Amino acid sequence: MNNFEFRNPTKIVFGTDSMDKISSLIKPFGKKVLVTYGGGSIKTNGIYDKVMSQLKDFDVKEFAGIEPNPRVETIRKIIQDFKDFDPDFVLAVGGGSVIDGTKLLVASMHYDGDPWDFLVKESAEPKKYLPFGTVLTVAATGSEMNNGAVITNWQEHQKLVFMREGCYPVFSILDPQNTFSLPKEQSAYGVIDAFSHVLEQYLNTTKDAPLQDRFSESILKTLIENSQIVISDPQNYQARANIMLSAAMALNNLIGSGVDEDWATHFIEHELSAFYDMPHAAGLAIITPRWMEQVKEQKAKKLIQYGTRIWNLSGSDQEIIDASIEKTFSFFKSLGVKMSLSDWNIDNQHFPEIIKRLVDLKIGETPLTAQQIESILNNCL
Amino acid sequence: MNNFEFRNPTKIVFGTDSMDKISSLIKPFGKKVLVTYGGGSIKTNGIYDKVMSQLKDFDVKEFAGIEPNPRVETIRKIIQDFKDFDPDFVLAVGGGSVIDGTKLLVASMHYDGDPWDFLVKESAEPKKYLPFGTVLTVAATGSEMNNGAVITNWQEHQKLVFMREGCYPVFSILDPQNTFSLPKEQSAYGVIDAFSHVLEQYLNTTKDAPLQDRFSESILKTLIENSQIVISDPQNYQARANIMLSAAMALNNLIGSGVDEDWATHFIEHELSAFYDMPHAAGLAIITPRWMEQVKEQKAKKLIQYGTRIWNLSGSDQEIIDASIEKTFSFFKSLGVKMSLSDWNIDNQHFPEIIKRLVDLKIGETPLTAQQIESILNNCL
Repeated sequence: MNNFEFRNPTKIVFGTDSMDKISSLIKPFGKKVLVTYGGGSIKTNGIYDKVMSQLKDFDVKEFAGIEPNPRVETIRKIIQDFKDFDPDFVLAVGGGSVIDGTKLLVASMHYDGDPWDFLVKESAEPKKYLPFGTVLTVAATGSEMNNGAVITNWQEHQKLVFMREGCYPVFSILDPQNTFSLPKEQSAYGVIDAFSHVLEQYLNTTKDAPLQDRFSESILKTLIENSQIVISDPQNYQARANIMLSAAMALNNLIGSGVDEDWATHFIEHELSAFYDMPHAAGLAIITPRWMEQVKEQKAKKLIQYGTRIWNLSGSDQEIIDASIEKTFSFFKSLGVKMSLSDWNIDNQHFPEIIKRLVDLKIGETPLTAQQIESILNNCL
Repeated sequence: MNNFEFRNPTKIVFGTDSMDKISSLIKPFGKKVLVTYGGGSIKTNGIYDKVMSQLKDFDVKEFAGIEPNPRVETIRKIIQDFKDFDPDFVLAVGGGSVIDGTKLLVASMHYDGDPWDFLVKESAEPKKYLPFGTVLTVAATGSEMNNGAVITNWQEHQKLVFMREGCYPVFSILDPQNTFSLPKEQSAYGVIDAFSHVLEQYLNTTKDAPLQDRFSESILKTLIENSQIVISDPQNYQARANIMLSAAMALNNLIGSGVDEDWATHFIEHELSAFYDMPHAAGLAIITPRWMEQVKEQKAKKLIQYGTRIWNLSGSDQEIIDASIEKTFSFFKSLGVKMSLSDWNIDNQHFPEIIKRLVDLKIGETPLTAQQIESILNNCL
């Protein structure tokens, strides 16, 4: 086990009555609340009304339109529109994109420079971080219980990550019922995103971290067992709850503490979707098995453990490794998602630039070579 | 899964270099630091010197002598002695008893009433909680990562629990090396304490909490696998690290979120050791299997899961249940601890009073009857 620091101050309010607590959770922070959300689905499924009924004693303004793969341009616009309102608290109502965008907003609202600084300058620090909470509507990214965000700069074809200690939500409302109306496709993407987050932390070569390994395996098994249920029976409360809790636990510092992490798959996906605007998890589903294939020698020991403990495989080491990759591919495919880039009409036009960028970033537990990255991308076509 | 709230703000600093960070971790809180510790073993194993070298730029006072099963009388004395010093921060260096005693101290230092109020009055609230950190020297109770404490009032033969939001440590230093010099017996007690904490939360009848179940099973397996190593090879860093992380995770709100908990075994042990001054985990080892026997019908389903997943048992349901209890007994015994109260020269003299108290407390997921409690106690003799 490696040395590590762990801290996660977010309060999770989980369950059927959690929306009723929004008002009392925000009260200590002040009167002026800015509500951020996405494309407006919360207006048709009733979540918007429930949130607003909790905020009737506050001075509320709202911003609709934080898009999937949230863009820095949007955050600049929110700051411009609401700087004078000077909110005491921000409430993000949505999935990972709305929450990620809101994280950049709370960092930038009291910062004199441009929001993009937080993505490219370690030293960028605001005068203060605005406190914020979330009402989660998609179980997927784990952004509701961490301090990281992925932001796209569409003009420069850049999609980058930033993390700040001030960017943990004060609270996150996790009511599984708020995910009942998700389209099948989005439910599948959520499972794949969380599954990928676990693999990025679990498929390491760190020795002697048995508890972290088993925590990871606990999440993987729970995701597998509940994935088909949320797709075929979207209003199944217990399955939605199990997926929602799993997604939060998949990226809240818990399973990555004390182990080497990888994240090559995520970096490759970020570069791809900086050029081609595809859903994040759609890319992860396609890239993950091809990445596993490239690192199967380096990570042989862990892949055998993964194959035996998660997929109950037996046979020679090589058979288990190969079958574990195949099982991962089949699992994603069984959720109904496209398993090649050509299904998304993506060709290799931007591959040379993507490969160059990824080599510079030194991605993976042991940095992948240009050749390895090229193989992964070509095998994804 | 039940509705729940989860929050745990403690920062864990884990590993071989963690002691080096004490100074910078305390700095933001002020200059005046009160260090609390126990019987003085930290002076012989070098921990005291390392802590003090980190505090050379602070105004430091110290209190030695928070005893095992910490007593309210001791906390009253500390307040009396250091009220005028008016510390900015308290650093608890020790195991669960030192940390528990320090929690009552930080609640009481700025409270006008008597410290015991926190044990018996929900409404007791101090003007402020003193911030505190811990340097853990025994992996066992999990007090380093929660907001609860067990305090004994020896005059009144009472041993009670209190919890307050202000009683989470700001940070906890978890260096597995700090447990290298523990006597075998204490290492065994630590494993048993953590194991029991998991069983109290895991052996429930809550439906549909598969992730919490698997997290619990992860901790149980890690404890089992590493227990003999820390006893036979006390300086094995990785085994010490695995036990240390497991003990913290066993009682930090994680595995108890969303499930019904039991805690009957702990309540029985608290009453026992309020009359007979025996180590906490010594009591747990003896009581746990006898308690399982009493609740084996009510908790049949979970005991079968426990038997099959943790002990790889097979057979009829009844065979698995009985064998799972026997395995638990044998596991504790294999760690070298006494498995009956008579080995501690404890007779049934105080049983009637203990039973009366426990019935009033309504202990267990489904409250145990006087008859059940009597059977458990008699079977422990």
